[in-house]
Amino acid sequence: MDSTRALLNCDMGEGFGLWTMGNDAQVMPHIDLANIACGFHASDPQVMVNTIQLALEHNVKIGAHPSYPDLQGFGRRSIPMSIDEIVNLMIYQIGALQALAHSQGSLLHYVKPHGALYNDMMRDMSIFEGICEAVSQFHVPLMVLATPNRESLLDIADQYDVPLLFEAFIDRAYLADGSLAPRSLKGAVLGNHDDIINQAKQIIHYQKIQTLDQETLIVEADTLCIHGDNPLAASIAGDLRKLLLSME
Amino acid sequence: MDSTRALLNCDMGEGFGLWTMGNDAQVMPHIDLANIACGFHASDPQVMVNTIQLALEHNVKIGAHPSYPDLQGFGRRSIPMSIDEIVNLMIYQIGALQALAHSQGSLLHYVKPHGALYNDMMRDMSIFEGICEAVSQFHVPLMVLATPNRESLLDIADQYDVPLLFEAFIDRAYLADGSLAPRSLKGAVLGNHDDIINQAKQIIHYQKIQTLDQETLIVEADTLCIHGDNPLAASIAGDLRKLLLSME
Amino acid sequence: MDSTRALLNCDMGEGFGLWTMGNDAQVMPHIDLANIACGFHASDPQVMVNTIQLALEHNVKIGAHPSYPDLQGFGRRSIPMSIDEIVNLMIYQIGALQALAHSQGSLLHYVKPHGALYNDMMRDMSIFEGICEAVSQFHVPLMVLATPNRESLLDIADQYDVPLLFEAFIDRAYLADGSLAPRSLKGAVLGNHDDIINQAKQIIHYQKIQTLDQETLIVEADTLCIHGDNPLAASIAGDLRKLLLSME
Amino acid sequence: MDSTRALLNCDMGEGFGLWTMGNDAQVMPHIDLANIACGFHASDPQVMVNTIQLALEHNVKIGAHPSYPDLQGFGRRSIPMSIDEIVNLMIYQIGALQALAHSQGSLLHYVKPHGALYNDMMRDMSIFEGICEAVSQFHVPLMVLATPNRESLLDIADQYDVPLLFEAFIDRAYLADGSLAPRSLKGAVLGNHDDIINQAKQIIHYQKIQTLDQETLIVEADTLCIHGDNPLAASIAGDLRKLLLSME
Repeated sequence: MDSTRALLNCDMGEGFGLWTMGNDAQVMPHIDLANIACGFHASDPQVMVNTIQLALEHNVKIGAHPSYPDLQGFGRRSIPMSIDEIVNLMIYQIGALQALAHSQGSLLHYVKPHGALYNDMMRDMSIFEGICEAVSQFHVPLMVLATPNRESLLDIADQYDVPLLFEAFIDRAYLADGSLAPRSLKGAVLGNHDDIINQAKQIIHYQKIQTLDQETLIVEADTLCIHGDNPLAASIAGDLRKLLLSME
Repeated sequence: MDSTRALLNCDMGEGFGLWTMGNDAQVMPHIDLANIACGFHASDPQVMVNTIQLALEHNVKIGAHPSYPDLQGFGRRSIPMSIDEIVNLMIYQIGALQALAHSQGSLLHYVKPHGALYNDMMRDMSIFEGICEAVSQFHVPLMVLATPNRESLLDIADQYDVPLLFEAFIDRAYLADGSLAPRSLKGAVLGNHDDIINQAKQIIHYQKIQTLDQETLIVEADTLCIHGDNPLAASIAGDLRKLLLSME
Repeated sequence: MDSTRALLNCDMGEGFGLWTMGNDAQVMPHIDLANIACGFHASDPQVMVNTIQLALEHNVKIGAHPSYPDLQGFGRRSIPMSIDEIVNLMIYQIGALQALAHSQGSLLHYVKPHGALYNDMMRDMSIFEGICEAVSQFHVPLMVLATPNRESLLDIADQYDVPLLFEAFIDRAYLADGSLAPRSLKGAVLGNHDDIINQAKQIIHYQKIQTLDQETLIVEADTLCIHGDNPLAASIAGDLRKLLLSME
Repeated sequence: MDSTRALLNCDMGEGFGLWTMGNDAQVMPHIDLANIACGFHASDPQVMVNTIQLALEHNVKIGAHPSYPDLQGFGRRSIPMSIDEIVNLMIYQIGALQALAHSQGSLLHYVKPHGALYNDMMRDMSIFEGICEAVSQFHVPLMVLATPNRESLLDIADQYDVPLLFEAFIDRAYLADGSLAPRSLKGAVLGNHDDIINQAKQIIHYQKIQTLDQETLIVEADTLCIHGDNPLAASIAGDLRKLLLSME
């Protein structure tokens, strides 16, 4: 990623049928990258198209946000699958989103796995390699967590010619090993506007985060993630965008 | 279609998870075009890849076989959807199959809607137009029923630059208006080897079919469809392939 | 129904997984009957139990609200099924809700089909009869639309020993034939607090409704329905409950 | 279980929509207990009713065979859920089957969890306890694996007044700890008629099994399970039934 500033990314298009989630219309004007659900943990073809159109209106680049097949669990449950099954599951979803993007005059810019699939990718290098294989079909970058084992991720991704986009979470607490604190832990989700902006500033200015278990973690991030289901998402994204633009 | 002989097409990849249907391995060696289910009435990413690989082994061209979202009803139930929803439903499924085909070194050659969506397309020209719009994104032909209103179909498809492949069914009885006799009618499905071969010969040699209601129907077909769930499919496809090759 | 006043009923438990819909917690204190989704158009076992518990807290009687299998379309799409299939679809869902109700120390009090299944039941007497057959297994009343053909409904229901609860909609416009105006028609959904209260009063005091096509319709209702996804639902239900209680 | 001979149980009703699995019609005449899928790993309301009717014809008692929500994975994948969610998932499915059984003049006789849920129940006593809680609502026995820790299972089940039916598998190899050998292990599924009959005889006559890792395992079983997807199921069930009847 040759951009000179950190980009804001946010999960988008997480409705399903008549159900809605998040505040896409309020958040979209303030972000750079929209991670669009592909129908397996949320979204359906119509929601995907509506979200692609909203991204286009605001010049936001779109990424595929594929998931385990788990609408009821919103993709937060790890489903045991073979690596081959994960590869094909990913290609199916990314291909579907890419085709819908093309139909709207847009392009696929990157891929970011969702939820449990994202966590499993960071935890299990055979899953990470399968995901690199799937993403390599589309000649776009893969977004991953900015962690201490950055080099080993790059080694594998390079074998598949897949560029990596490292992201940091500004509204989630970290553990000392560089993983996100599980949602079941108290304090895992930052719920306060100032705390979130503060964590963002720490990452932007100093490339570090204070972890939940009171360690200091080095975090080199190309992009910052804010969760769309956070009620503060729109106001934080707006403030952060101003901060980032002022630094260019 | 510039081929000098009628091609055989068959629905393939209609399993789902552990469930199987049809005899893909037996039928595939004898056909030219494999209509591959895209996960909405049958199939899943893994079944799709297995079917693409089987088609590749036998030099069979692959087409997307998208459907209404209806696993339980096998896509045979018409689901009320707006034209926009149908367009996006189609693009989603075709895009998914195309991406999986590319990942296996294969290509998408055509699109054939499945079941109730196919019937609705032939019955309702606004649905047909929506389907042309969806298929036009992929620059491949659309397979439709060879019916008396051939010209009006061509007029609409031309507006979207979508070539049409006209198909005739060799194991289904027709009505005088050119539609397939509904499965609920006695005699709607030909169950006898000789009757099926005979209907195929009528189409190939004379471009006509004797309908269930005792009329003669003109049928000009680029391709002949045989149903894979017909227990005779493999033996009929084998005999028919020999007949067609002997005519070249 | 031996109650001396009209009861308020409302669709409840229409979330699914992480998605929510309506304001169950705000509306529940003001209603008498909660129509609880059974997992086919909305809800899942966990949402069902949470909704049953909420109903218990407010002494609200619970009814099963079964649907066609259509999460994506929220049960508003008519799915072609045989009468036998509809009977078994209903028994499955009602049985599931009843068992969950028993597990919470509650009881099933009635059944009200949802969405397209409700409309199909009112339109097609063979479907209505199938639904009576299904409900008769549970020895509870069936809730139906209060329409001019009240007597013919009663004749069929009596054959299955199924009592009928007639309901009127206070936030939906009617047509002169007694059917609900389709949502696609302008004015089909009443969006104004006073208009809704006014329609309720017309029904309660005079047993009549002014239809969208400017006729007067006789409506004899045991229960009034308010839609939970109406943002005014809680305040209207509160006002209406006071009005109804003042009449006892 | 006060029966004087071991009963044969088999998974039944594992089709879904148009897909079929197993040979229910051939196997049902030879078994005593039919474990009927409840729509979450296989089956749908129509398949359930057809299976209940088949069981009735052959005087076979029916049990609910509930599963994790996983049609694509046939319930063989463990889905992370809280104990509360498992309890409600079970009650939903058992209630649905019980209601359909009643509608056909039949009764629910027992419950046997399916696939990954069964394995998780045997592995994790908090899940086992949740399942006992769910089953206790229906006042029927729970079928579990006959294992060395029989007493600890009985202790928990007794707290919920749930009788246990211990079963042994005649077509699956065991490990020395009393668990079934995972399907991924060579030799995990017995594929030979004589081997299966031999394992059955060992259990019936001597209450013991030779394990895959060459140990001898004590197995006290009330019922013997044969898998319906085993192509030999019908012939083995027939032979075994004769053997068991000859011992009465």
